[in-house]
Amino acid sequence: MARYVFKFGGTSVGDAKRIKSVAEKVKQAHSEGHEIIVVVSAMSGETNRLTALAGGLLVKPNPREMDVLLSTGEQVTIALLSMALGALGCPAESFTGGQVEILTDSVHSKARIKDIGVAAIQNCLKSGKVAVVAGFQGVNEQGHITTLGRGGSDTTAVALAAKLKASECYIYTDVDGVYTTDPRVEPTARKMDSITFEEMLEMASLGSKVLQIRAVEFAGKYNVPLRVLSTFSEGNGTLITYEDDGMERALISGIAFNRDEAKLTINGVPDLPGVASKIVGPIAANNIEIDMIIQNIADDETTDFTFTVHRNDYHKAVALLEEIKTSLSAKKVSGDDTIVKVSLVGVGMRSHSGIASKMFDVLASEGINIKMISTSEIKISVVIDEKHLEAAVRALHKSFELAGRPVL
Amino acid sequence: MARYVFKFGGTSVGDAKRIKSVAEKVKQAHSEGHEIIVVVSAMSGETNRLTALAGGLLVKPNPREMDVLLSTGEQVTIALLSMALGALGCPAESFTGGQVEILTDSVHSKARIKDIGVAAIQNCLKSGKVAVVAGFQGVNEQGHITTLGRGGSDTTAVALAAKLKASECYIYTDVDGVYTTDPRVEPTARKMDSITFEEMLEMASLGSKVLQIRAVEFAGKYNVPLRVLSTFSEGNGTLITYEDDGMERALISGIAFNRDEAKLTINGVPDLPGVASKIVGPIAANNIEIDMIIQNIADDETTDFTFTVHRNDYHKAVALLEEIKTSLSAKKVSGDDTIVKVSLVGVGMRSHSGIASKMFDVLASEGINIKMISTSEIKISVVIDEKHLEAAVRALHKSFELAGRPVL
Repeated sequence: MARYVFKFGGTSVGDAKRIKSVAEKVKQAHSEGHEIIVVVSAMSGETNRLTALAGGLLVKPNPREMDVLLSTGEQVTIALLSMALGALGCPAESFTGGQVEILTDSVHSKARIKDIGVAAIQNCLKSGKVAVVAGFQGVNEQGHITTLGRGGSDTTAVALAAKLKASECYIYTDVDGVYTTDPRVEPTARKMDSITFEEMLEMASLGSKVLQIRAVEFAGKYNVPLRVLSTFSEGNGTLITYEDDGMERALISGIAFNRDEAKLTINGVPDLPGVASKIVGPIAANNIEIDMIIQNIADDETTDFTFTVHRNDYHKAVALLEEIKTSLSAKKVSGDDTIVKVSLVGVGMRSHSGIASKMFDVLASEGINIKMISTSEIKISVVIDEKHLEAAVRALHKSFELAGRPVL
Repeated sequence: MARYVFKFGGTSVGDAKRIKSVAEKVKQAHSEGHEIIVVVSAMSGETNRLTALAGGLLVKPNPREMDVLLSTGEQVTIALLSMALGALGCPAESFTGGQVEILTDSVHSKARIKDIGVAAIQNCLKSGKVAVVAGFQGVNEQGHITTLGRGGSDTTAVALAAKLKASECYIYTDVDGVYTTDPRVEPTARKMDSITFEEMLEMASLGSKVLQIRAVEFAGKYNVPLRVLSTFSEGNGTLITYEDDGMERALISGIAFNRDEAKLTINGVPDLPGVASKIVGPIAANNIEIDMIIQNIADDETTDFTFTVHRNDYHKAVALLEEIKTSLSAKKVSGDDTIVKVSLVGVGMRSHSGIASKMFDVLASEGINIKMISTSEIKISVVIDEKHLEAAVRALHKSFELAGRPVL
């Protein structure tokens, strides 16, 4: 007998038929003698419906009340799923975030979990019932309802798995696992049987949005094995766990890419201490997230500073940079919002050299110009022109033999 | 400065425009310096939508989970109304039943309020905010969500008014007050400026369904003046309060009627102690509510027993009575599901005699045969054939001068 957390996203519980099919899956595991905690999202479309209700008021919605509104979405799902389970003879009890008690900070719509009460769920499991928990929501110390932000149900599931010491946390979704790259770009992309937390973090943050990055961080931090798998088909999905030293790891696990990037450069900045923060500070203060940052010394007295932002923030960032240019007496601001980032990810890089040079060779042989490079211990990212994205991903996927490699 | 509870039903908050207009009304009172607690129902149609979601599962819904599901309806409204108020510059904070804490027993879907926590709302009012409370819902001692049953928002409002010692509880609805009888039956029916709790109880339980009967009981018990008025038009509505001895009361306040009645008789029952409970017991055990009961001695050894039930329960009640007939060796079971009940209500009856005989005279002069009579201190009810309903109500309304009488 083991204890598992199952998480089902909005599409998996999108209508009565799907809820019943989720109930069948849960019942199966419960009847095998396991303790099951199910975390569910709002039915697909529900969050949009609720947001539209608030939108109908034509006012700026109060964040506290927006959370009160949106949290009803998952509450509907927990009630329906618990009913469906009960009707299958599988006893179940529903829990809102407040009932669990999932304690968060007070940042409405983007709250972070601080602690989780276990008594209520432990009692539920002890009495032989399935615990059905509303994802995405919690309460702060004053008992006000908070939400973890869109997709936060993954985080709820992982946090519960950590706190309740579950053997594994299953994230059921509409894809059957994590792929070496996006199959829409490279049809030979292969589902991985396993991937490390670190690799998954790099894959997720770089654009393979199977899982919420916060959930992966959490899982890694508390060493909760995560499994991403499909609600709608059979199969074991992809297990995300710590590197097993006994395992022969491939050099490269996958290729992530991000189409939403834009690049900005400010040239001729005086090369003095504190200058970087004078550039990055105002950008961050305007809620623009900066991704890659590169600084080159141009000559003895000035430096060039280049960074990337989300494409939606490009024009705002250019305007801010023009102001910064004046205040710093820099020379020029330039930018490009037709670029993409492509990254090789793999823990194997740690012990193998030559990955970067091979990557650059492959791109060169395709006639692809590299505009920026950034590396970490387990990834190499390059910025290239967006028109080369497909060619780059395919050439790299082939050269690093991601398609043909036998299953780990 | 006074403290008021305002309650708005589902129609009053049925869409964004109406929610904004409710917010205007609340803001007005708040800006006059009053402390306002607003209790709201689910938006009209919402409870049906949620019930249909559960219905889509095609299973018998678990009552606990049904309450979890349905309670989201008011939660949506409190969030939207609080947002609308905030946008008008009227600070507001929403409260679910659990957040208030409205403590109930554990009878899901028909819970009764046991106590109400006041700290959270007191703090909210003290900080100058409007408290927006979800009606119809509470939590039991284990923290499970309960509902008070349809229309229970009235009860929430009155209970809050009692506990928070509000000056008055305003029930905003889609009618502009309590009428002497149903204006659809008698066009000269007049809105009353005031009515006593006892009269209102008789009116409500007899079919003038403006207010939940439980709410009126509660208001009477804790002496909370209630005011029924329209959300959509101006006017002071009808005040429901204790009899003011200084007031010249009319003999009759109003005429209530109920079209949903059916009548059953079991003849030739042995006239022995305990027989009545042997008849009523099995009926009640099958969740059939009995309204009027009349027992007549037929001869020395047997008696006839007649009672009324809701028309929907008629066939079930007949079947039960056939079984009872056999076990009691009674003679015959008969019944009629084409009857209605018409009642005169008025505290003035207490001090005036002759009302009953005048009522019977009026009906006789219309050629209306009376099938059953039942009286209490402040009402006289008769059962007549349903085809005579309109004629009876109109003749009584005219004879007791309900239309023409000057306003109290």
